[in-house]
Amino acid sequence: MDQNLFFERKGPFLIKDLFKDVNSKNLSILDVKTLEKSSNQDLTFFDTIKYKDYANLTKAGCCITTSKLQKYLPKNCIKILVNNVLYELAKITKKFYPSADVDFPDLTLKIPNTTLYKGVKFGNNVLIGKNVKIGDGSIVGSNTIIESNVSINKNCIIGSQIVIKNSIIGENVIIQDGCKIGLKGFGFIPLKEKNIKFPHIGKVVLHKNIEIGSSCTIDRGSIDDTVIGENTYLDNQVHIAHNVKIGKNCMIAGQVGFAGSSVIGNNVSIGGQAGISGHLKIGDNVKIGGGSGVIKDIENNSIVMGYPAIKLKNFLKKSKIK
Amino acid sequence: MDQNLFFERKGPFLIKDLFKDVNSKNLSILDVKTLEKSSNQDLTFFDTIKYKDYANLTKAGCCITTSKLQKYLPKNCIKILVNNVLYELAKITKKFYPSADVDFPDLTLKIPNTTLYKGVKFGNNVLIGKNVKIGDGSIVGSNTIIESNVSINKNCIIGSQIVIKNSIIGENVIIQDGCKIGLKGFGFIPLKEKNIKFPHIGKVVLHKNIEIGSSCTIDRGSIDDTVIGENTYLDNQVHIAHNVKIGKNCMIAGQVGFAGSSVIGNNVSIGGQAGISGHLKIGDNVKIGGGSGVIKDIENNSIVMGYPAIKLKNFLKKSKIK
Amino acid sequence: MDQNLFFERKGPFLIKDLFKDVNSKNLSILDVKTLEKSSNQDLTFFDTIKYKDYANLTKAGCCITTSKLQKYLPKNCIKILVNNVLYELAKITKKFYPSADVDFPDLTLKIPNTTLYKGVKFGNNVLIGKNVKIGDGSIVGSNTIIESNVSINKNCIIGSQIVIKNSIIGENVIIQDGCKIGLKGFGFIPLKEKNIKFPHIGKVVLHKNIEIGSSCTIDRGSIDDTVIGENTYLDNQVHIAHNVKIGKNCMIAGQVGFAGSSVIGNNVSIGGQAGISGHLKIGDNVKIGGGSGVIKDIENNSIVMGYPAIKLKNFLKKSKIK
Repeated sequence: MDQNLFFERKGPFLIKDLFKDVNSKNLSILDVKTLEKSSNQDLTFFDTIKYKDYANLTKAGCCITTSKLQKYLPKNCIKILVNNVLYELAKITKKFYPSADVDFPDLTLKIPNTTLYKGVKFGNNVLIGKNVKIGDGSIVGSNTIIESNVSINKNCIIGSQIVIKNSIIGENVIIQDGCKIGLKGFGFIPLKEKNIKFPHIGKVVLHKNIEIGSSCTIDRGSIDDTVIGENTYLDNQVHIAHNVKIGKNCMIAGQVGFAGSSVIGNNVSIGGQAGISGHLKIGDNVKIGGGSGVIKDIENNSIVMGYPAIKLKNFLKKSKIK
Repeated sequence: MDQNLFFERKGPFLIKDLFKDVNSKNLSILDVKTLEKSSNQDLTFFDTIKYKDYANLTKAGCCITTSKLQKYLPKNCIKILVNNVLYELAKITKKFYPSADVDFPDLTLKIPNTTLYKGVKFGNNVLIGKNVKIGDGSIVGSNTIIESNVSINKNCIIGSQIVIKNSIIGENVIIQDGCKIGLKGFGFIPLKEKNIKFPHIGKVVLHKNIEIGSSCTIDRGSIDDTVIGENTYLDNQVHIAHNVKIGKNCMIAGQVGFAGSSVIGNNVSIGGQAGISGHLKIGDNVKIGGGSGVIKDIENNSIVMGYPAIKLKNFLKKSKIK
Repeated sequence: MDQNLFFERKGPFLIKDLFKDVNSKNLSILDVKTLEKSSNQDLTFFDTIKYKDYANLTKAGCCITTSKLQKYLPKNCIKILVNNVLYELAKITKKFYPSADVDFPDLTLKIPNTTLYKGVKFGNNVLIGKNVKIGDGSIVGSNTIIESNVSINKNCIIGSQIVIKNSIIGENVIIQDGCKIGLKGFGFIPLKEKNIKFPHIGKVVLHKNIEIGSSCTIDRGSIDDTVIGENTYLDNQVHIAHNVKIGKNCMIAGQVGFAGSSVIGNNVSIGGQAGISGHLKIGDNVKIGGGSGVIKDIENNSIVMGYPAIKLKNFLKKSKIK
């Protein structure tokens, strides 16, 4: 049975113990997953029509959704109808994962026992959690923290003053000084007096041959993962929010920001300080000019610029630049 | 008598020793404060008509101002008339606080004596200055630095690789890895060859239940404080300049920047990469779209977007997006 | 003979061993330099007509360029004609400097031997490489890393949790907590599967009396240096890419970003979150409004704002703000 590498999971829970009004059998729920990744013993959620194709194909045993959206789900998926999907999801996810909504600092960190990491070179004051894997040929710079259960493949260069948690990192990845990777993202249910923090049970997956510039922040996924494809390069001070997926061979210039859950294709280049709103789909081979603000999906092979970003030729016309 | 928690104050000074041309009595000046906070033994300053209502009500014993603005001050407040208010203020403040214009690293830092912090959990290589208070139930991550006289209330989670100085932090506050809080802000009198650094004698006040994302910078106030209200959440890489006040229950997305001295109401949400210019007043319940550049005050309950930010419906019309 | 302070240089190489098709003599090449800085035993490159004046005056012994551009080079400069100048340059530079294309963490770092730095004060866990010079009266904060061969002049205040490598720093410079200075920039030849990383053999030069805010990133030059002039002040979270030159007495507000190789004059002020595209020339006494996106050269004494940035009066007209 698959398990979450980074967060202790409680359960299984009987569905009738999770939701009072569900008058259905003794279905036992093992985990909380996305529409695509759920199996028939998992709970999922469906809160925006954007994802109706995934809803239609989900194998989830039950799904938190709204009365409007329920029709897109398969018949045999038990629907939990609520007004605020994310609010219910946060509460349920917290039952499964009681400690994923706050980044408690890892108190098991220690200077690495070099007999366990014979092929790895460490700077001074590197701090490593339990069960951290680091491949041969990798180097970890001074004052860097790698929390428990993180896995780093071979020939990686991890700079200094970095924090990595809840992450799986492929071979030949370079991470420059000061990055913070795998932290809880910006997700919560806003309430007066005291917001409800959304548990982040996902991870960060960095594929091989990636380079991450200095002082980037890459948050882990909430229910899903945050993923960067191979041979994609990020410049300094880039911010990648939870659940973002970036394809292969992309070039992301300095200070670019991605809001949550956007999906970026392959061979995409993005100029400095551009911003990508949440839940967008950016196609393959797209070029986004520096400083742009992208607020809707972009088709394959487009060149866009502006705020809001439009086709480059329209932007130039509008700006009267020849 | 109140005192500055973080900076040693000299004085009191006789007003005639501070300003040559003031032919007034032997008034003794204890401190430098804002128009609102001054009492009759304090020196204040008044340099822009924006603050005329505060000027009118000030209880300050004397005030550095211009000949144009002096009429807004109470009769019994001694006016020090100058051409460049901030230049004079910087020089005088430096007399009262000789070491507040440079962030000298705290050289008293030590690994905490855990018998003094029995209810607190520490990671490795945490460094704590003198007279630091940390409440029970709080956790401080590895490599974090908390400089002298900082006060942190109970049940706070302070991540790793953080620096906190000149700050008062309420209970149940979460600060994610890499933040730098309480540093000197970007204030100086520009001069050829060698600028005059403006002393920053204020602090950072974080109220309870706040969450601060990774790698944010929150500068302390110059004469006033920088304050964030309870239950306000900040995403990663947010920059908050000196003297900014943010209300309760706000949501500030990634890479947002606030220039100095702006005042933000309650229940305000600000999208990613938006920028707020200095000395603005943003009302309650305002929503500011991602990427916006706010350059004037915004009324309560407004929704704005764009650069410069305008009412959302006007922005959409202008951008021809349906 | 001059040498690179930070990267071991191989060679000299005979030009015929570097380029197969060059049927010219036994010219021996010592180093790779810019058009301006090359002497007759150096190799240079010329890839854009923007730099034709420098090309015309170069003293380089040979130059990688294109068939179109070769006419701008002096007759006695040997032209190496290629399709992709930067690709060839990367390969050749890698031969001269095999380890400048990846920031390998400095594994020689140690707690400083204070007898070698008698006039310097250090916080805890400061880590210093080989042959680091630090002038009297300087202070270095805790957890800061200064890699081998860095030179810091007298009376500097280097904050905490900083990384400095490949840099020369003048006297009286202040660097606030969390900055990362001298790292490899965002330069590579994009290739499917595995990009070619561009060697960065330049350094960062910070002149005297500079102040750098918290959490800035200043990348070193690729072939040239990155330089900041005296008495220039940077606010927090500023990003300066490789080869950027900034003049004297400039004011750069928070979260501003500079793309590679731009040249900024003296007395320039730039508002928060503005972005400056690559390879631009910004004149003296220019003022750039906050949030602007500068995508072409700007003349001396101009005031510009907007995205793309235009003369301020035109921006205000366009925005209909009085």
